[in-house]
Amino acid sequence: MKLVVFIVVFSKVCTVYGITVEDYKNLQKHLMTNYSNKVRPVKNQDHAVQVTASFHLSDINDVDAVQQQLVTTAYLSILWIDELLVWDQEITNIDRLYFKQKDIWTPDIVLKNGVKKFEELGGEVYYLEVFPNGEVHWMPYQVFESKCDMDITYFPFDTQVCDITFISWSFFKLEVNMMLPESGPPVYFYDFNENSVWGIESTGGRRSQSHIADSTVTFTLHLRRKPLYYVMNLILPVVLLGVISLLVFVIPADAGEKMSFAVTVFLSFAVFLSIISMQLPVNSENTSLLGVYLVFQMSIAVAIIIISAFQLRLHHRCEERKVGTFYRGIVNIERCLRCVKSCSDNNSKKKYNWRNDSYEPKVDYDDVSWKDVSSAIDFVCFWTMLFFGIIATTVLVVYMNNGIS
Amino acid sequence: MKLVVFIVVFSKVCTVYGITVEDYKNLQKHLMTNYSNKVRPVKNQDHAVQVTASFHLSDINDVDAVQQQLVTTAYLSILWIDELLVWDQEITNIDRLYFKQKDIWTPDIVLKNGVKKFEELGGEVYYLEVFPNGEVHWMPYQVFESKCDMDITYFPFDTQVCDITFISWSFFKLEVNMMLPESGPPVYFYDFNENSVWGIESTGGRRSQSHIADSTVTFTLHLRRKPLYYVMNLILPVVLLGVISLLVFVIPADAGEKMSFAVTVFLSFAVFLSIISMQLPVNSENTSLLGVYLVFQMSIAVAIIIISAFQLRLHHRCEERKVGTFYRGIVNIERCLRCVKSCSDNNSKKKYNWRNDSYEPKVDYDDVSWKDVSSAIDFVCFWTMLFFGIIATTVLVVYMNNGIS
Amino acid sequence: MKLVVFIVVFSKVCTVYGITVEDYKNLQKHLMTNYSNKVRPVKNQDHAVQVTASFHLSDINDVDAVQQQLVTTAYLSILWIDELLVWDQEITNIDRLYFKQKDIWTPDIVLKNGVKKFEELGGEVYYLEVFPNGEVHWMPYQVFESKCDMDITYFPFDTQVCDITFISWSFFKLEVNMMLPESGPPVYFYDFNENSVWGIESTGGRRSQSHIADSTVTFTLHLRRKPLYYVMNLILPVVLLGVISLLVFVIPADAGEKMSFAVTVFLSFAVFLSIISMQLPVNSENTSLLGVYLVFQMSIAVAIIIISAFQLRLHHRCEERKVGTFYRGIVNIERCLRCVKSCSDNNSKKKYNWRNDSYEPKVDYDDVSWKDVSSAIDFVCFWTMLFFGIIATTVLVVYMNNGIS
Amino acid sequence: MKLVVFIVVFSKVCTVYGITVEDYKNLQKHLMTNYSNKVRPVKNQDHAVQVTASFHLSDINDVDAVQQQLVTTAYLSILWIDELLVWDQEITNIDRLYFKQKDIWTPDIVLKNGVKKFEELGGEVYYLEVFPNGEVHWMPYQVFESKCDMDITYFPFDTQVCDITFISWSFFKLEVNMMLPESGPPVYFYDFNENSVWGIESTGGRRSQSHIADSTVTFTLHLRRKPLYYVMNLILPVVLLGVISLLVFVIPADAGEKMSFAVTVFLSFAVFLSIISMQLPVNSENTSLLGVYLVFQMSIAVAIIIISAFQLRLHHRCEERKVGTFYRGIVNIERCLRCVKSCSDNNSKKKYNWRNDSYEPKVDYDDVSWKDVSSAIDFVCFWTMLFFGIIATTVLVVYMNNGIS
Amino acid sequence: MKLVVFIVVFSKVCTVYGITVEDYKNLQKHLMTNYSNKVRPVKNQDHAVQVTASFHLSDINDVDAVQQQLVTTAYLSILWIDELLVWDQEITNIDRLYFKQKDIWTPDIVLKNGVKKFEELGGEVYYLEVFPNGEVHWMPYQVFESKCDMDITYFPFDTQVCDITFISWSFFKLEVNMMLPESGPPVYFYDFNENSVWGIESTGGRRSQSHIADSTVTFTLHLRRKPLYYVMNLILPVVLLGVISLLVFVIPADAGEKMSFAVTVFLSFAVFLSIISMQLPVNSENTSLLGVYLVFQMSIAVAIIIISAFQLRLHHRCEERKVGTFYRGIVNIERCLRCVKSCSDNNSKKKYNWRNDSYEPKVDYDDVSWKDVSSAIDFVCFWTMLFFGIIATTVLVVYMNNGIS
Repeated sequence: MKLVVFIVVFSKVCTVYGITVEDYKNLQKHLMTNYSNKVRPVKNQDHAVQVTASFHLSDINDVDAVQQQLVTTAYLSILWIDELLVWDQEITNIDRLYFKQKDIWTPDIVLKNGVKKFEELGGEVYYLEVFPNGEVHWMPYQVFESKCDMDITYFPFDTQVCDITFISWSFFKLEVNMMLPESGPPVYFYDFNENSVWGIESTGGRRSQSHIADSTVTFTLHLRRKPLYYVMNLILPVVLLGVISLLVFVIPADAGEKMSFAVTVFLSFAVFLSIISMQLPVNSENTSLLGVYLVFQMSIAVAIIIISAFQLRLHHRCEERKVGTFYRGIVNIERCLRCVKSCSDNNSKKKYNWRNDSYEPKVDYDDVSWKDVSSAIDFVCFWTMLFFGIIATTVLVVYMNNGIS
Repeated sequence: MKLVVFIVVFSKVCTVYGITVEDYKNLQKHLMTNYSNKVRPVKNQDHAVQVTASFHLSDINDVDAVQQQLVTTAYLSILWIDELLVWDQEITNIDRLYFKQKDIWTPDIVLKNGVKKFEELGGEVYYLEVFPNGEVHWMPYQVFESKCDMDITYFPFDTQVCDITFISWSFFKLEVNMMLPESGPPVYFYDFNENSVWGIESTGGRRSQSHIADSTVTFTLHLRRKPLYYVMNLILPVVLLGVISLLVFVIPADAGEKMSFAVTVFLSFAVFLSIISMQLPVNSENTSLLGVYLVFQMSIAVAIIIISAFQLRLHHRCEERKVGTFYRGIVNIERCLRCVKSCSDNNSKKKYNWRNDSYEPKVDYDDVSWKDVSSAIDFVCFWTMLFFGIIATTVLVVYMNNGIS
Repeated sequence: MKLVVFIVVFSKVCTVYGITVEDYKNLQKHLMTNYSNKVRPVKNQDHAVQVTASFHLSDINDVDAVQQQLVTTAYLSILWIDELLVWDQEITNIDRLYFKQKDIWTPDIVLKNGVKKFEELGGEVYYLEVFPNGEVHWMPYQVFESKCDMDITYFPFDTQVCDITFISWSFFKLEVNMMLPESGPPVYFYDFNENSVWGIESTGGRRSQSHIADSTVTFTLHLRRKPLYYVMNLILPVVLLGVISLLVFVIPADAGEKMSFAVTVFLSFAVFLSIISMQLPVNSENTSLLGVYLVFQMSIAVAIIIISAFQLRLHHRCEERKVGTFYRGIVNIERCLRCVKSCSDNNSKKKYNWRNDSYEPKVDYDDVSWKDVSSAIDFVCFWTMLFFGIIATTVLVVYMNNGIS
Repeated sequence: MKLVVFIVVFSKVCTVYGITVEDYKNLQKHLMTNYSNKVRPVKNQDHAVQVTASFHLSDINDVDAVQQQLVTTAYLSILWIDELLVWDQEITNIDRLYFKQKDIWTPDIVLKNGVKKFEELGGEVYYLEVFPNGEVHWMPYQVFESKCDMDITYFPFDTQVCDITFISWSFFKLEVNMMLPESGPPVYFYDFNENSVWGIESTGGRRSQSHIADSTVTFTLHLRRKPLYYVMNLILPVVLLGVISLLVFVIPADAGEKMSFAVTVFLSFAVFLSIISMQLPVNSENTSLLGVYLVFQMSIAVAIIIISAFQLRLHHRCEERKVGTFYRGIVNIERCLRCVKSCSDNNSKKKYNWRNDSYEPKVDYDDVSWKDVSSAIDFVCFWTMLFFGIIATTVLVVYMNNGIS
Repeated sequence: MKLVVFIVVFSKVCTVYGITVEDYKNLQKHLMTNYSNKVRPVKNQDHAVQVTASFHLSDINDVDAVQQQLVTTAYLSILWIDELLVWDQEITNIDRLYFKQKDIWTPDIVLKNGVKKFEELGGEVYYLEVFPNGEVHWMPYQVFESKCDMDITYFPFDTQVCDITFISWSFFKLEVNMMLPESGPPVYFYDFNENSVWGIESTGGRRSQSHIADSTVTFTLHLRRKPLYYVMNLILPVVLLGVISLLVFVIPADAGEKMSFAVTVFLSFAVFLSIISMQLPVNSENTSLLGVYLVFQMSIAVAIIIISAFQLRLHHRCEERKVGTFYRGIVNIERCLRCVKSCSDNNSKKKYNWRNDSYEPKVDYDDVSWKDVSSAIDFVCFWTMLFFGIIATTVLVVYMNNGIS
């Protein structure tokens, strides 16, 4: 009754010239009279407050694989009907009112999967827009630090699915019912700058389904890492190092640089590792393929150093010692393979053998010197390691591709 | 009416001796009576509050290419007319009043493109200056962390254009109308210290144009990076390393230092990379030309190592093996080029050939030893790589110049 | 009496249509009348308030062995009976009320073993749920930074037991009595993401036992570090480096690469150490076995360098100088050992000796050249160092296993 | 009038036994009655409040050349007369009152050249001391982060002059007049610990002069960096490296270590650079002399590598090729210089020449072998580079000295 | 009078059944009536409030030698008599009351030697315990960041004495008198976890003595660094490197690895320095002995490189050049020393000389070749440098011991 009386009185004043400040103040004061911001604003308290929320992404600040966090800047657009803030627009001519956030009831929405203490959304600076039918608009702009379970297996070609979940912490679903907007997508972009490392593939949203449970809405971001930087600064150097470490077998033992070359390559591995280890997340759960590849390459490099050292010892072995059958086998394998590969070489060798033949037909046995063994090891190991390296890189590429698609 | 009465009474007191504290307090109390800081201070609420803002830059704290942020310290000079805080200066003799920020209405201006939670401008410490005609001056001094989409392609010769946008978040343009000052530039400098890395080329400002949209003013800073530091600490070392890595082909194979030199140069690349990678932003969107150049230089270094290794193998190849036609071709190219270059050399060689001629005219074929091949590879590769290096560096310089102009 | 009167009046209104906002407001107002949030809410102040708390772990943010801190995100579920907030559910039809945290009494529970200033749990955003019998539910979601005395001896195979203790700081146990829930475990998981480095083995809880002491509840987390990452990035490289450093004795002194190889390996140790030292905690209390192992390996590497240097001097010693008896001893040991190992070698040597015999039967003494000494040192030291390395690694593995089980 | 009445009544009570709590409370209440902390406390509002401030330095927390900031911990001692807080000490016997900061008017002094948002000085914990004549003492203890334009040219022998400016932000000089204390220095030391890197040479203070301008006081600190640490950890290693890199020309080309030595020295430069670059500020404005010196040294090192490489090529050049006139020139220069230096050498050489003379008098031409050229280059370059190095170091020292004095 | 009346009425109610909530509320309300928390709670304001404080250390968070800070977590136990909060326990039966911190007067105690802005102790969460005689207990648990002038001369065997001083900032000693507890130590340990690097040797406390001065209490911690970690990770590697760098003189010049060994050792120094420089504080005031030792070792390494380079030049000097008298002197010294050392060697040499004698008795002069000079330099320098190294290390150890005791 009081409301009607008020409005009648009110409307008379209004019509004089537009809407005056006094009109606003009076309407505000009228609505605030007897209003409590601690009670859900539904006249029948058995009903739930229907709260609609959408997510307006403004910036991806950080995707932290080590802390498993996603940090976003965004504002939530939250709407609900406050049944206690209703007025007749036609009589008052006022189509909108603004209230300070702390003056009216707001749902206690918080970031459910955050890593910080719960903080109230919004703050002192916000005015909430209220329409004659009681609809309240609230648009708190915040930084959200949400947990995100990341799978770095396919790093740096990985895709991450991150949820940002909001919950009405104290109220049950029967009291405050969180919903996504009925039309339109749940996630919008607002003044969005593309992140320099992460692209957004798609977005989505969902709400908690059961009727009794907590009332939550979840916004989902499908993020894809842009691999260019990592390909250029991580993968390329490692592959190049892998190639270089094979060259140990190309350098002839006579050059006297085999070992120092091999160990300097290993040292370069160590230096690169110190760069890379700052960028790869500490994660014992799912090892990244790239990490496994790195360890594989390093093991190969160590194997190469070990082989080279023993090869060098053979190379400098006194010529008077007989070459064992195992080493002869290696030399034979090398000759055999070379034969297959380059027949011209083979011919010249045969000729050569033939020439030696003239002196001593059974010399085939004696013409294997320790130098030949060293050379054969070079040949065999180079191709073996090259083979393994190519296999490993191929496997890496294939798995990575699986990760992408 | 009340106002007039008040002022008459008031003026009598005033004339006694200057303006007393009581006069101030009374005027303040009078103006605050019935004042609500929650309603826009225009008598006709259909009108917009005209808010004029200018930006007074005090410091560029940080330009963060990784986080894509610009951090500035500045104060906003904000002016508007509060139609409810008007008094007659002649009667009261008071030409200025100060109010605490929280006592009167202030526009809810926030940094729109920030990366932090919205924060109210100003704070408890501020007094707002109010003039008799209702003009309010507000000068909040803050740190603004604004997003800035950076293009590091031309790093370290890059220019960045950064916007700092302020918005009246809750109100529409029809309610609170943000404007730039009518005369004078939008951006001033206040006690400004030149940043040691970034210079300011020019500044600008603009306001949102459409009538219905959000009400924003945008201040623009055109920043130019001062490249001296980066030229001395990034580009110079990389160019020098590129030059050094060419020397592998100058060192004679007999010296026995070719490979260890080559691989140590590569190791130096790795070490430099670890320094540089801390300074170059992680960015897969637009790769910096410098990054591409670095990768190119590293690839060249690797190519040099590979070539040297095979060259060394040729160098130590048993002299009895015949030199293939491919290698002969290289030697011929070298001789041909040398001929063009230094005719005196050519002559002496011809003489030499001629001398050999006496023994065996067709020896031209046989005098190509593996050592000659190795030497020819040195010659050919040195000039080829030098050529590529110069081309790449020239291309870099040309593109960088494009970036500057 | 007043309460009864009120409820009678109240119930009449309620029955009309559900529970209205007014009903709520009236009940709230009624309960708040004369309520003081500064007095423990038990009617007989000689009784203690029984507070039940359980821990709902949401995230392990950080386990910091350097600062000896455990950082967790969790919410506490706290329950107690507020005897002053009691109403008749049947009459009022209201089965639940919500109060702002600051409006009613809450226990002054704080994190006892934290490393920050005490902070009040919860905050402005929280509504506390109150039931007709006075039961209050409070669920503050916070980040807890608690001290945790860590034993890194078995790093990275270590297990840590961390306590998170809550205390009612001002009140004695006779006033506020903290308890664990009677049924169910004390620690729950809420929306828990497995940490990428630490797994949770088990959880527990206990309360302070004595009757007079402070009133505390302690939640215990048994954490186990997942070692995969550290095995791949710390232990594997160190073991590989240890293997490589042994190869110094494989490289023949004639190759001219012994020393440069040895010192480059040492340099790699230094580089690896710079990576590792960032990950191992600074701790002089209990040294990690891995740290001891690292120091041992480095000492071995230094020993190898020293031995190699002197060996090289012997190797290049003028042949005219006589070989001392000590060095002869080494050569004899080597020959003896080789004999045991490969009898075929032995035979060929015997033959060789026999051939020399013909010239001079007692030449056995003179055939030990300095080169032989150098070679013998290679042989003896390689196996000795290998032996020590294997022993050390085995001891490490055995101790680590003890740590695990 | 009221005041007098009050005091008469008041004094009667007081004389009974000392000053009671009630006396204090009554006087406080009396003074607070009608007091507004929002109006300047001068009876005639045309007068300015005279505010005297002095600076009591407690700690230099940080001098950040990168961010160009000075961070100090200090308290300001601020004094002014509050004409509204005056009482008769003789009557009341009370010689001092304490008020909470927020209860009385305080000038809105803020750090003008700070890099943070303006913050109110002081806080809730402060009591302000008020004397009977209205004198108020305020001593807020804060951390001040002020901008300081640093000139790192003479790093690490640099002297910096840093201003810490305080302003009464909202008021004009005619309203609040900031002053320095009339007697005594403007800057005091309070419990001051000498900083381990920066010493304070002198201090000063000044106030804004013009009558209309903003009212500021500026405290100035003249800081001198203590160079010992940097001499030992930056300059010494770089000078030593410079010396070492000269040794490339001492190592004979026959030793086969020239290039690997030269490139490892360059690598050491890279490693040192990675240490130094963490300590030198990123600054393109004024490059530090030390930075220029470093770049110079690195360029010298590169020049040495280039020369050595070509020298090595000459050294291994086939002896059959004739030595060109340019190279003969170098050899002659060397011989000439050596002649000047050591006549005994010259004599023995002459003898040698004379001996050759016997065979062929014109042999002077032929006795210049490529080895001699290589040796001559060693000699000439060593002294040339040493000369340049000494010049550069001298220039550095001279300039640095200029910086100091 | 009122109090007595109240208590009589009060006691009647109480005796019915224990103490009711109402009793508490009434007593609280009674005490708070007319209570002002802005006036010192002594009835005679000429008396001082006696405040007793003790320090209960819970954790040493950080001892920062660079920032010269000590960060501790502790609670202060503060006691004083509030003469205005007194009641009769026998009548009321209430033996304890709890008040919120902000409701009653608290001394304005702050950390005097902190590096942060003064902050009020305690906070909203604290209840203060008040006893019938007016005794108030306050136990604020905080993190204290206090300045501590550190002397790192004996690092890592250093002992630091750190003061944590609390002051009643606004009040004089005659108004608020800070005291230590009369019995018991001033510093207690509460739930203390031993720090992993710093042990506590002893603790102490003192108060300001003069009667007029500021009222302070100072708690002192005597901290001793546990050196194990630093010995293993800093000192051991540096000593080992020093040993390795001596080996340059052991490696024979013929091996062709002298220089590359020497320079790689220097490079290792650079790498170690990069690790160490992160751990040693930047301090130009008092240089740590360890830093001096490091610089000494590096200078030795450089000296070794220089000597080796010149030695190598001598070694490869043409044999036809005569050996100067200086070099002959060195050879003689070596021979002389060796003679003393190993007489057996001497004998064999004599024999050798004797044999040569037969050809040419005065050959003693001519048998000194450049190789001998090089070898003599090796011998002399090795022992000289070893001598210096041992002396330096001994001096270091002796000084360190002084530091400890």
